[in-house]
Amino acid sequence: MLTNTDMASSRKVIELFYDVISPYSWLGFEVMCRYRNVWNIDLKLRPAFLGGIMQGSGNKPPGLVPNKFLYMTTDLHRLAQYFQVPISPPADPFEAMFEKGSLSAMRFVAAVQEREVGGDKQVEQVSRELWMRIWSQDKDITQPASLSEAAMKAGLSASEVEELLKLSTSKEIKDKLKRSTQEALDHRAFGFPLAVCHVNGKAEVFFGSDRFELIAHCIGEKWMGPQPAAAKL
Amino acid sequence: MLTNTDMASSRKVIELFYDVISPYSWLGFEVMCRYRNVWNIDLKLRPAFLGGIMQGSGNKPPGLVPNKFLYMTTDLHRLAQYFQVPISPPADPFEAMFEKGSLSAMRFVAAVQEREVGGDKQVEQVSRELWMRIWSQDKDITQPASLSEAAMKAGLSASEVEELLKLSTSKEIKDKLKRSTQEALDHRAFGFPLAVCHVNGKAEVFFGSDRFELIAHCIGEKWMGPQPAAAKL
Repeated sequence: MLTNTDMASSRKVIELFYDVISPYSWLGFEVMCRYRNVWNIDLKLRPAFLGGIMQGSGNKPPGLVPNKFLYMTTDLHRLAQYFQVPISPPADPFEAMFEKGSLSAMRFVAAVQEREVGGDKQVEQVSRELWMRIWSQDKDITQPASLSEAAMKAGLSASEVEELLKLSTSKEIKDKLKRSTQEALDHRAFGFPLAVCHVNGKAEVFFGSDRFELIAHCIGEKWMGPQPAAAKL
Repeated sequence: MLTNTDMASSRKVIELFYDVISPYSWLGFEVMCRYRNVWNIDLKLRPAFLGGIMQGSGNKPPGLVPNKFLYMTTDLHRLAQYFQVPISPPADPFEAMFEKGSLSAMRFVAAVQEREVGGDKQVEQVSRELWMRIWSQDKDITQPASLSEAAMKAGLSASEVEELLKLSTSKEIKDKLKRSTQEALDHRAFGFPLAVCHVNGKAEVFFGSDRFELIAHCIGEKWMGPQPAAAKL
């Protein structure tokens, strides 16, 4: 939800809806995190649940068409290299994505966001560590021990993690994740990542990790490729 | 099919598979036509039949998911403006795309290509005129009179058009269109546009009109946005 303060700022607000189950979300997430310090934007991280988006929109995961699955494998590999994001698909992507899923992981991220004050550095780092586990190291993201390990790597203390694990199964957090998922559906989401750019009082919605150049054009900023820091040197 | 001469050239060969039924193909087509004189490439236009790709790959048109259809409408409008391609969807896109289709139109384009010697300017111009009809002016592309009008606008004479209309229903041309569609399927197509870049003896396949920056990187050229001529001024 955007506050009046967000709207009054001269910086343009971009909400990024994502789920760590989605490798294209990882690409979108890293690029937007790199640009949050380059473009005049307020980036709002919006962890949500992709399973709920698929169900709510009636969409099907693209990987179910064999040629599309083969293409996505190549496409992800090329993009990972070009974007410099260490994507390496799990040995059994169908088990990881469709059987195990990301519900507990995204509830945990929602709990991290609920507790974090003054910024979203922890949300960013915990999300990244979860992507590292599932989409780089073929590790579990469903068990409490897995979430704990990711959060510790992201710099949280053992006692913080314990509290967050407990919080993540509360009705409060389940509802919070449902709300953000519903907000994405209200923006007509059918997949992630979804970038909602608030420009002149209007929400411009961009799906996928292949509209950055258009997003830049839309918010009056310059696209310098997926690594703006390198481009500026 | 690539000849030995193509392979021996220092210029990199890019094959572009497309169907005029597809508005994203139009975007890809115009951008590649603009870059054929900017990048050190040989662009090979490969008219093919998207209906055959959908059937052969088991893919479903994306527009059948309501949220995706709504998104594509907005996305196409924004891209059309940014790419400077005059896309304006037909009043009844489902009738135009799924009931009327493009089989006779793509056979006609295949016939134009079969007869054209020394280049593919006619193929380019006739394809563009067909896109103008269906994806800009909400006009028919199934009737002989429609194909004739498009071809005349593209600069062909009345007698040439008459011969091409006849040729377009021949077994020779039907087989030619089937072959190019099958070649796209052999490259694991599940939709159009499909750009097949031949780099160091390897075919790198890119789907969609949102991988130009990656294509440029792949062939060692520079991406300057969708209007390279404007960018160079």
